[in-house]
Amino acid sequence: MKVKREKKNPIIRPADIVPFSDDFEVIGVFNPGVTLFRGKVLLFLRVAQRPKDRKDGYLRVPVYNETTKSMEIVKFEKNDKTIDFSDKRVIVMPDGKRFLTSYSSFLVATSENGVDFDIRQGKYITPSCPEESFGIEDARITKLEDTYYINYSAASEQGIVTNLICTKDFETFERMGTVMYPDNKDMSIFPEKVGGKYLALHRPSTSEFGKPEIWLAQSPDLLCWGNHKHLMSVREGKWDETRIGSSSVPIRTEQGWLEIYHGADRNNRYCLGAVLLDEKDPSRVLARLEEPFLFPEEKYEKEGFFKDVVFACGNVVRGDEIDIYYGASDEFVAKATVSVRELLDALLKK
Amino acid sequence: MKVKREKKNPIIRPADIVPFSDDFEVIGVFNPGVTLFRGKVLLFLRVAQRPKDRKDGYLRVPVYNETTKSMEIVKFEKNDKTIDFSDKRVIVMPDGKRFLTSYSSFLVATSENGVDFDIRQGKYITPSCPEESFGIEDARITKLEDTYYINYSAASEQGIVTNLICTKDFETFERMGTVMYPDNKDMSIFPEKVGGKYLALHRPSTSEFGKPEIWLAQSPDLLCWGNHKHLMSVREGKWDETRIGSSSVPIRTEQGWLEIYHGADRNNRYCLGAVLLDEKDPSRVLARLEEPFLFPEEKYEKEGFFKDVVFACGNVVRGDEIDIYYGASDEFVAKATVSVRELLDALLKK
Repeated sequence: MKVKREKKNPIIRPADIVPFSDDFEVIGVFNPGVTLFRGKVLLFLRVAQRPKDRKDGYLRVPVYNETTKSMEIVKFEKNDKTIDFSDKRVIVMPDGKRFLTSYSSFLVATSENGVDFDIRQGKYITPSCPEESFGIEDARITKLEDTYYINYSAASEQGIVTNLICTKDFETFERMGTVMYPDNKDMSIFPEKVGGKYLALHRPSTSEFGKPEIWLAQSPDLLCWGNHKHLMSVREGKWDETRIGSSSVPIRTEQGWLEIYHGADRNNRYCLGAVLLDEKDPSRVLARLEEPFLFPEEKYEKEGFFKDVVFACGNVVRGDEIDIYYGASDEFVAKATVSVRELLDALLKK
Repeated sequence: MKVKREKKNPIIRPADIVPFSDDFEVIGVFNPGVTLFRGKVLLFLRVAQRPKDRKDGYLRVPVYNETTKSMEIVKFEKNDKTIDFSDKRVIVMPDGKRFLTSYSSFLVATSENGVDFDIRQGKYITPSCPEESFGIEDARITKLEDTYYINYSAASEQGIVTNLICTKDFETFERMGTVMYPDNKDMSIFPEKVGGKYLALHRPSTSEFGKPEIWLAQSPDLLCWGNHKHLMSVREGKWDETRIGSSSVPIRTEQGWLEIYHGADRNNRYCLGAVLLDEKDPSRVLARLEEPFLFPEEKYEKEGFFKDVVFACGNVVRGDEIDIYYGASDEFVAKATVSVRELLDALLKK
């Protein structure tokens, strides 16, 4: 199956983004939510930044403080041997308490041609409640009638939850609270009701039994979710052996719901695969690709901040083509195009 | 504060229960859901049983099989050094996959005097879907109008979920699906709507950030839950330092919602404490006891199957008295009575 990577990849880089202030540096712009808005491709960019290193022996991380309703800086002594700095994304304290090394917010970017983006510099959508104190990440956008529903992961010392906001104009946003309790990521709301209910894919992470796998849920109102059903498992020994999660609002086709999902293996290599769900009963998996159709090959996918990662949150479907805007190595936004027909043929082994 | 333990404690023991068949033994009857039904105290007993040891070198555990819609026996070689049998409740395979050493089902028991129970021998409510394949546990019962809603933990290789069933007569039960995805335990639905919404306490277990703590959720229909809010944390160095969860349907008092909860420390010693929530906005914690009011003291609490555990799922309120029916050491049902007034005085430091 052909995957056409955009020649200008990566199409958005950290250097393209103006940080919060001169004291900050942008270390990643990646994993965008994607939709079509007023004829343009709109990306809801995840921008990860951190305070610049002052070379004074301290590592600084921003945390949202509910009391002051603003971001504050927490600092850690780099020589403190009781603190675990081994994962460059996470700081683990002696008591197991965790902090993130960067602080993610959202930024809107739009494009006429789907490649060259106007970034709304400085207009950050930032954490604004205790459940978001470590940052907000990985948006998915579902349009229902005239409203865009944007769900995203929010991290705090209480765990990782899925929060929901909505907008009609991408200027003002209404916060709709925590729709999925911890730990939960990778929610994707279906673009229409099925059997009279809103549906969504989501990805709980369990603590003992079970693995990070994809579940299906239904809702009467988009706020409250239930009738949870386990949908898909990881596959031992394969590219998606340790964790999987939705990487696309499900795409309606004549053969059923086409869903692009990400999986990781034991080396934290993230790839994109596809699965086909029954049109009327999406709890039925009709077919699943054995191999990923998009995997880290290019330098920007293999050598960035967190290497060997392609990770998508959304796409734009134009006729037979799916333009996937994906995060490359937790650092860049890249674009690749695949054919709906070819994906379905591969799934149905035609 | 006085705690009156019933003189006949433990009031129900494994020897009182008739197992599935002669091949099985009951190893625990504990953690009952509790309600008043037609003037009697009704317990929804958790009965844990396992196949009798055949002394042939194998440990056998029952697992529900969705294909055959029945329980089947899985066996493990006891001297297989690659299998971890160190926790007597759990079997951990080399790949991390887990099984439970016993299989829990429910049994109804009723009593006129609240002490001597008629047990509906043999009429088991058993696992009946893939999410329940390792057993069903720890019911909580909330009466809303003329219907009793019973939520409980269900374990399977997909994790630990909260499932809901309802009944009007405790003879026939309607299954309402998985209301909380994994990992989730200790749900308690409020006995009336607050602000026009159903409310519930629940206890997610997170995988990375966060600890097993109590959250509040709301629902329009009891099936779908949202607007999740973190309610209460564990307390470092105290009796409830590692995990907490609801142990009572919230009790309405003039001072607010009185909630009995359980907590465990680093030694897995489980005790019962209390907290007071605002009447109109139960996301506000008004007061919390520093110390547990019920903790393992008696032999049946300190020396049973899993020692040093008192764990409740429900109670009956009679005027000023709360009759708590609790699990003792994961083996017995015991009863203790406390005063609403004394609990409130202790909470409000009167």
